[in-house]
Amino acid sequence: MSQRHTALADVRALSFDVFGTVVDWRSSVIREGDALGTRLGLTVDWAAFADAWRGGYAPAMDRVRHGELPWTRLDDLHRMTLDRLLDDFGIAGALDEAEREAFNRVWHRLDPWPDSVGGLIRLRERYVLATLSNGNISLLVNMAKRAGLPWDCVLSAELAGHYKPDPEVYHMTAHLLDQPPKRILMVAAHQDDLRAAQREGFRTAFVRRPLEHGPDAIPDLSVDSFNLVADDFHELADKLGIC
Amino acid sequence: MSQRHTALADVRALSFDVFGTVVDWRSSVIREGDALGTRLGLTVDWAAFADAWRGGYAPAMDRVRHGELPWTRLDDLHRMTLDRLLDDFGIAGALDEAEREAFNRVWHRLDPWPDSVGGLIRLRERYVLATLSNGNISLLVNMAKRAGLPWDCVLSAELAGHYKPDPEVYHMTAHLLDQPPKRILMVAAHQDDLRAAQREGFRTAFVRRPLEHGPDAIPDLSVDSFNLVADDFHELADKLGIC
Repeated sequence: MSQRHTALADVRALSFDVFGTVVDWRSSVIREGDALGTRLGLTVDWAAFADAWRGGYAPAMDRVRHGELPWTRLDDLHRMTLDRLLDDFGIAGALDEAEREAFNRVWHRLDPWPDSVGGLIRLRERYVLATLSNGNISLLVNMAKRAGLPWDCVLSAELAGHYKPDPEVYHMTAHLLDQPPKRILMVAAHQDDLRAAQREGFRTAFVRRPLEHGPDAIPDLSVDSFNLVADDFHELADKLGIC
Repeated sequence: MSQRHTALADVRALSFDVFGTVVDWRSSVIREGDALGTRLGLTVDWAAFADAWRGGYAPAMDRVRHGELPWTRLDDLHRMTLDRLLDDFGIAGALDEAEREAFNRVWHRLDPWPDSVGGLIRLRERYVLATLSNGNISLLVNMAKRAGLPWDCVLSAELAGHYKPDPEVYHMTAHLLDQPPKRILMVAAHQDDLRAAQREGFRTAFVRRPLEHGPDAIPDLSVDSFNLVADDFHELADKLGIC
């Protein structure tokens, strides 16, 4: 057995980043934006809107992480960014409160990547599967129910009162799963998330999602010192030796 | 529509007590006790042992609830009670540390009542299903995985740092599910749990489990002012109008 596989022999649980790793947020937001635009007669570049909405994600969380805002769940951060973007895109007058609230919930209705559900079903045969997302619990539960994501356990930054990559989120996960960090494999399409998990002792699997930011983006797909690299969840299951 | 059903029309999520309501702790502990006794050559009344172990449950949690102990997860409270009972039953010398730890985990391996899995599958078609148990997260996750309990979300007193019936546990549940309490139906075989949920604004369903404490016990099955009463989860689904 290679050293790489020895490091994974003790793994009991997999913790998953969700936005971008499990679900394709960009296509899903564009799809609902298109439908909303058609219904309300709006001319909007929904790809640009989706990118700008997601672009507001890290800065909004950083305001919480750096103490500028008290703990605020992701639904509410998404809504703050949405209200600003409706202004920026010149369509603030077109959406009333009920429309805004409904559109903000698009993050509860993101579609999985084509391999996600099938890969998770295989992985679940051997491991405890937990989310480890900055999305709030209700968002993750609604998403899983709609998309058929077979989590054993929905864990969220909300339970720690800290956003990734703060170390408290990873500590909370190991504590609640009652496993030492080295028995948990963090699965993510984002290297900063994996490096933060690695610093807390987690094993790491980098799943490349080259289309997360659209066909024209050039994501960093270079490979750092992770325990595993895979191009989708079926390859992840294969490399973990699951039939 | 009757007033009773009007009160339930807005329900979006069901929160479940687990020990006794979803799983038959007593038969499961007796079964594993019998196997352990046979293997180690012990003569023990395992029914009495199971009842004593469960009998230590409320007093142990009360030590936490009243500040005599800091927050202690249920696995550790179960273990404290187990160590005492092994002395009381005169078999302390027969179980080494590894045996004790393995037997303590019997609470992760409880069998569901015969209707539990099938009833939950029906209920899950319409509602978000969450545990709301004093069991710790890892216990509930292990139990669900083994027994096939199809939770959308595993919530536990552990997340509130308070044991039921403290009000904080119910508040935490409504907050994490992002629902007003009146949209959550608490399902339990125990009237004190239901009354505590009711005080916090939850709707309540009393599911009678006359065999929880064995064939000779006489549980309180009288009906208080709950929104629904059912004899199992299929009847609960029927009364909620699920085909």
